[in-house]
Amino acid sequence: MDVVLLGSGNVATHLGRALIASGHRIAQVYSRSLAGAKALADALGVAATDNLQAIATGADLYVISVTDGAIGDVASSLPPVTGIVVHTAGSIPMDALSGHAAHFGVLYPVQTFSKAVAVDFSSLPLAVEASDEATLTQLEALAASLSSRVFRCDSNQRLSLHVAAVFACNFVNHCYAIGDAILARHGLDFDLIRPLILETAAKVMAHRPDAVQTGPAVRNDTDTMRRHLALLADCPGLAQLYGTLSERIRPTP
Amino acid sequence: MDVVLLGSGNVATHLGRALIASGHRIAQVYSRSLAGAKALADALGVAATDNLQAIATGADLYVISVTDGAIGDVASSLPPVTGIVVHTAGSIPMDALSGHAAHFGVLYPVQTFSKAVAVDFSSLPLAVEASDEATLTQLEALAASLSSRVFRCDSNQRLSLHVAAVFACNFVNHCYAIGDAILARHGLDFDLIRPLILETAAKVMAHRPDAVQTGPAVRNDTDTMRRHLALLADCPGLAQLYGTLSERIRPTP
Repeated sequence: MDVVLLGSGNVATHLGRALIASGHRIAQVYSRSLAGAKALADALGVAATDNLQAIATGADLYVISVTDGAIGDVASSLPPVTGIVVHTAGSIPMDALSGHAAHFGVLYPVQTFSKAVAVDFSSLPLAVEASDEATLTQLEALAASLSSRVFRCDSNQRLSLHVAAVFACNFVNHCYAIGDAILARHGLDFDLIRPLILETAAKVMAHRPDAVQTGPAVRNDTDTMRRHLALLADCPGLAQLYGTLSERIRPTP
Repeated sequence: MDVVLLGSGNVATHLGRALIASGHRIAQVYSRSLAGAKALADALGVAATDNLQAIATGADLYVISVTDGAIGDVASSLPPVTGIVVHTAGSIPMDALSGHAAHFGVLYPVQTFSKAVAVDFSSLPLAVEASDEATLTQLEALAASLSSRVFRCDSNQRLSLHVAAVFACNFVNHCYAIGDAILARHGLDFDLIRPLILETAAKVMAHRPDAVQTGPAVRNDTDTMRRHLALLADCPGLAQLYGTLSERIRPTP
């Protein structure tokens, strides 16, 4: 497919690379900032623009990978195009594109992206949704050229996937950060719990998390929880969070 | 060293295997339940007993790996021994062994153990603490024969390590479980977020968690957070937890 990338952030960068690696052609990179557009366009060896009215109108696919709040603006400012217009956001309904293109949809990669870390798209879950069956078939074919794990997912399911990801990724990382802060306060290094963190993630690759829950709360070990709360006595917010999460984990009698 | 294992749970099992693999000798396995003692003793090819008065009194080391609440009972019921007595618990002060042995200490492996999953001790952080310098030196030598990551750690530091592990392992696993439950409610499979979970853990192997925090809260993306809270509207407990964690992550203005 001939693809125009609208956006130059993490998702646009990784998706652009994956599209080229799978034999697609990036026609152009647009970004509100010309410097951002150029940085990505140069890396991909294609043309850059910061003018939406100057984008190629004959491409097969327009991928809007901008911040959630700007998706509607970019879509409504597009010149008339015949290709499919998609966004890549987890929590924005597909209908944000409705009225701005004849054929539209969503291509949502379920992963956390950093610019510096390479991402293997070949086994990455890719959620697709489209305005009509023919568009869906085209998007599925495109997605299948990138990954072996393509699945259909409506906007509300995609939102639930995004919320699940916030718990299992963003909030998990914050729990790591709390661990780091507690260790630092006691003169210990975060490195001491890195093997534990990796093993905890590795365990749920083959098991459901509920089946492998460990720790004092699931054992209802009130003595240990009391000792832990005593250590957190001078951090009321952490003590309260410890209590809330332990109460959720504790088996109901 | 000649070692008597007191306990037959996950830590005793993995530590027993690691000790043998490093050339030590297990003299005996004690457990309150003879079946439990036999299961582990048979696996290690050694003798079992459920009678504390029948344990070998000439060993170099006695490792108490029982539930936290039973450590004091086992220690106080030991016959007089000349070897070092240690426990392996994260949150129990070393002084729980005081008065029950001339030389005592703690050997705490910072990892989560399941019976079915093999554990590589060679790079596992091992915290040691001892009643006196000579005992500490002996314990460090033993620990160094198991792992390249041995460190000294007093009882209060060890407690902080245990609390940090609860956040970075037990509470993290619960966040995975919440993600799983949200997906299940919307007809989606936990498998969809497994790559995300693994990548989130992998990221903090080389970075501090604070430096790689992602998601709507750290971006202060209130529109997305509002959409997420709307999805959680019929789970008040989850919505509240979402709010608490997001508030902690949100940058202070």
